[in-house]
Amino acid sequence: MAATATLLISCPDRPGLVARTSTFLAERNANIVHADQHTDAEAGLFLQRIEFELDGLDADALGPDFAPIGDELDMEWSLHLPRRQRLAILSSKEPHCLLDLIGRQQMGELAGEIAVVVSNHPDHKLLALGAGIPFRHLPVTPETRDEQEEAVLAVADEFRVDLVVLARYMQVLSDRLVDGLPGRTINIHHSFLPAFAGARPYHQAHVRGVKLIGATAHYVTSDLDEGPIIEQDVVRVSHRDSVDVLRRKGRDLEKVVLARAVRHHLEHRVIVYGNKTVVFD
Amino acid sequence: MAATATLLISCPDRPGLVARTSTFLAERNANIVHADQHTDAEAGLFLQRIEFELDGLDADALGPDFAPIGDELDMEWSLHLPRRQRLAILSSKEPHCLLDLIGRQQMGELAGEIAVVVSNHPDHKLLALGAGIPFRHLPVTPETRDEQEEAVLAVADEFRVDLVVLARYMQVLSDRLVDGLPGRTINIHHSFLPAFAGARPYHQAHVRGVKLIGATAHYVTSDLDEGPIIEQDVVRVSHRDSVDVLRRKGRDLEKVVLARAVRHHLEHRVIVYGNKTVVFD
Amino acid sequence: MAATATLLISCPDRPGLVARTSTFLAERNANIVHADQHTDAEAGLFLQRIEFELDGLDADALGPDFAPIGDELDMEWSLHLPRRQRLAILSSKEPHCLLDLIGRQQMGELAGEIAVVVSNHPDHKLLALGAGIPFRHLPVTPETRDEQEEAVLAVADEFRVDLVVLARYMQVLSDRLVDGLPGRTINIHHSFLPAFAGARPYHQAHVRGVKLIGATAHYVTSDLDEGPIIEQDVVRVSHRDSVDVLRRKGRDLEKVVLARAVRHHLEHRVIVYGNKTVVFD
Amino acid sequence: MAATATLLISCPDRPGLVARTSTFLAERNANIVHADQHTDAEAGLFLQRIEFELDGLDADALGPDFAPIGDELDMEWSLHLPRRQRLAILSSKEPHCLLDLIGRQQMGELAGEIAVVVSNHPDHKLLALGAGIPFRHLPVTPETRDEQEEAVLAVADEFRVDLVVLARYMQVLSDRLVDGLPGRTINIHHSFLPAFAGARPYHQAHVRGVKLIGATAHYVTSDLDEGPIIEQDVVRVSHRDSVDVLRRKGRDLEKVVLARAVRHHLEHRVIVYGNKTVVFD
Repeated sequence: MAATATLLISCPDRPGLVARTSTFLAERNANIVHADQHTDAEAGLFLQRIEFELDGLDADALGPDFAPIGDELDMEWSLHLPRRQRLAILSSKEPHCLLDLIGRQQMGELAGEIAVVVSNHPDHKLLALGAGIPFRHLPVTPETRDEQEEAVLAVADEFRVDLVVLARYMQVLSDRLVDGLPGRTINIHHSFLPAFAGARPYHQAHVRGVKLIGATAHYVTSDLDEGPIIEQDVVRVSHRDSVDVLRRKGRDLEKVVLARAVRHHLEHRVIVYGNKTVVFD
Repeated sequence: MAATATLLISCPDRPGLVARTSTFLAERNANIVHADQHTDAEAGLFLQRIEFELDGLDADALGPDFAPIGDELDMEWSLHLPRRQRLAILSSKEPHCLLDLIGRQQMGELAGEIAVVVSNHPDHKLLALGAGIPFRHLPVTPETRDEQEEAVLAVADEFRVDLVVLARYMQVLSDRLVDGLPGRTINIHHSFLPAFAGARPYHQAHVRGVKLIGATAHYVTSDLDEGPIIEQDVVRVSHRDSVDVLRRKGRDLEKVVLARAVRHHLEHRVIVYGNKTVVFD
Repeated sequence: MAATATLLISCPDRPGLVARTSTFLAERNANIVHADQHTDAEAGLFLQRIEFELDGLDADALGPDFAPIGDELDMEWSLHLPRRQRLAILSSKEPHCLLDLIGRQQMGELAGEIAVVVSNHPDHKLLALGAGIPFRHLPVTPETRDEQEEAVLAVADEFRVDLVVLARYMQVLSDRLVDGLPGRTINIHHSFLPAFAGARPYHQAHVRGVKLIGATAHYVTSDLDEGPIIEQDVVRVSHRDSVDVLRRKGRDLEKVVLARAVRHHLEHRVIVYGNKTVVFD
Repeated sequence: MAATATLLISCPDRPGLVARTSTFLAERNANIVHADQHTDAEAGLFLQRIEFELDGLDADALGPDFAPIGDELDMEWSLHLPRRQRLAILSSKEPHCLLDLIGRQQMGELAGEIAVVVSNHPDHKLLALGAGIPFRHLPVTPETRDEQEEAVLAVADEFRVDLVVLARYMQVLSDRLVDGLPGRTINIHHSFLPAFAGARPYHQAHVRGVKLIGATAHYVTSDLDEGPIIEQDVVRVSHRDSVDVLRRKGRDLEKVVLARAVRHHLEHRVIVYGNKTVVFD
């Protein structure tokens, strides 16, 4: 496979946009591998993802060359050259999502590498170190929350992190932390949002007597469980399933839903606009 | 297939319950076709469904004979002898659920027959009459709601209705109507409850940017969209899907989910306890 | 919604193809509503679907103007201007797929209209006529197969049919009929192909003890059940489900899978290459 | 949770069977936690699973006491007292199923423990040993197959194995090995059987252009990929998915489908009859 770059664009809709971007690439003799676009008619918004081979191109000149087009057409755009992105995973006591992501890294599934595992509990230390990943134990109490969040930010900085993944991290993040983390932060919530937001969603699902349970991966915003949804899935349950069985069935969902969202993000397939996402899959 | 009867039981859990009910039937040489049970350990409740062949049994004596056992063991129980149940379908303007149920009746899928279609609009008159089903147009305004509900009750009475199905009936039922209708009433709500309760769920789903939409069939209680859930299902959607596409995809869900719930009910597979259901499928 | 036209293209892959087609449209000030492409790297093939608004365009000139580009780049291409396509539905005794398609036409879901129903049995006559659709009864025996197929071709011709849909039509089509029918023919097979090809797939599934059953919509070729697959789906079954229950559950699948395939085709979302399809959804 | 035992029964159907088994337990004051039964009308077969609390019972006497009933009613039956079952996992080079089962053991999800990992390649040695599980490398060539299978049998014997799980073990087992292994052997095949049996199912699926791929867990018999199916599931794919993407999506399926089958087996929820299974879930 030739190395590829990805261009993500969102801008006010108007005729000729596809021609402008594709002509820009054709002039450089770039081969487009995937191109996908979406027009949100209500919002009057054009969104596009173009992935193209870098073979024979001057990669460093692409951004500066495209900038005037972006300016002219009022685009928000980003150009992603091939680079292994660096992830920080925040976890607490439940290991299944962390284990799953480590396994995927070892299978070569992730277009990125786990640079560090951060936890408010010591439980996952051996798991991380056994996989050759640095581990930082940053315990937190209501009194020490500010300091602990400062420490989390410092770790993200130290490890030059591109993406933070909350892999069942059971702490609410302050606005300051959400804003301070580099790039976007992805969380996995163990329900089909917006149903059962907040604490103990499997208990809530059991009490309500739903016939399916779900999991939702979303970008973190200052509104808890209200950020843009990247991926969701569900599994059938029955009256026979205790809360413990819901938890077990839910773990299989959480792992897959979180991994899909992380992969979509790492492959530059997601554009956020308003409180929604476009996932070019 | 031999004719079968079904016994539904719920009672406080204790040892020996399965033996008591199955021995009652064995003494009469009844052949059990299906037997299923569930124990809700938290509630200390035993729930059972037994379906058995009536061949060679004195059907009329079964109930009186079982009553002392029911009394002794503090059971809520019901015995269902083979009988075509009579349905009233309430609809408004969207015909897809009504059409679907009529089609299933014609295919012989339903253990019951549609005795009457009631609507607050005249639109479905030809559809009902064309299928040989009586149609009653009972328009309603905020001012005439009480009278209209009286008329609905009178129709249910006139047609000796066993089950009322709200097939996208876009009126909120008063407590008086809910309580006055015979047996249970089943509604289809076009979302994955408890997400997007209330009005315009597909709009709500579109605004929130969910990646799956759902439908929920539930028994009607005086709390709107809060009754015991019988069946739910979902279908994947994407950023490409406008509200109109969500509606179209949702219609396919609504039809199937409502039909499954109606069939479960007609086959005496559902026991309600608290605000939940056990569905013995 | 403005009227739109759709351009479907497949050609040998090379750089600059997206730019060529989008520039062609941009020069005419056409607004692209959807554009999607796929490159099959193994086959060295580029496939594209572009849907654009016709507002202000000279629709009749588009084809002639595009032809030189198509020639130069060795394209197979087709341009679809807005036009209600005409369907012939072939059915036998099972009415569910026919009923479902008629219902969807009445809901306005189909970008086409059912021009005629043809059946080798008389059973669906009232159903078709009741919906205002002409019905032709063309019975067939092993001895009269050639004549009957001639008659089917004549009906397709008489009603200027664009698409033939086999809605559980239980006759094997001769090569001559397959080749003679206008455009493509879509069939629904009641299994998850390639499992359980041929006769009585629900029986086969029951005997094999599978835990899911499926349905497959595909284009008809001279190899029975071997044509390019457009859409498939499955539903969970259990040991409790008799062949009759498989049939009932399967009917709900067949209807939805066939309807999705017909809609994809009518909206010009499908390109066939080799024995596979690309579905731009 | 009180300790429970499970009774699995299959026998010719006749009236009174539920009463006999439940009365047997009621006489001992045993509390039934779950009871489920199935009658295969075609085969004239009654199948039952009863799980009951052992509290206050003489566990050792249960089997001998039940034997006369089993004899009288021509039952095949087995009584399963609480005991951690011992698993041997056979793997080759792909680690995902092995990793997944080890993770589930560590989460306490499995009613059993992995006693040994056997592989024809050395790759998984560290993975097994890191989890504290003995590892045996038993390489195989066409010439040494008989000896290697002898060695596999010897390992199963040495570790007193109850269940063998083929976790993507890429060797065909001889009849002698299949027959010689203790209890049943579970295999995961990476297709929706009976579609794409044999080698390279993802390639086959890609060539055929299916819209869903599947995975099947089944008991191993001397007919390759033809044994009784325990569990299956599918996931949607599209024309965009290369064989490598099918493999990646398939891995997530394989893990979950195999784990469900192993759990059903370990919890004594599966009865095999003919070439089918009943799974009491």
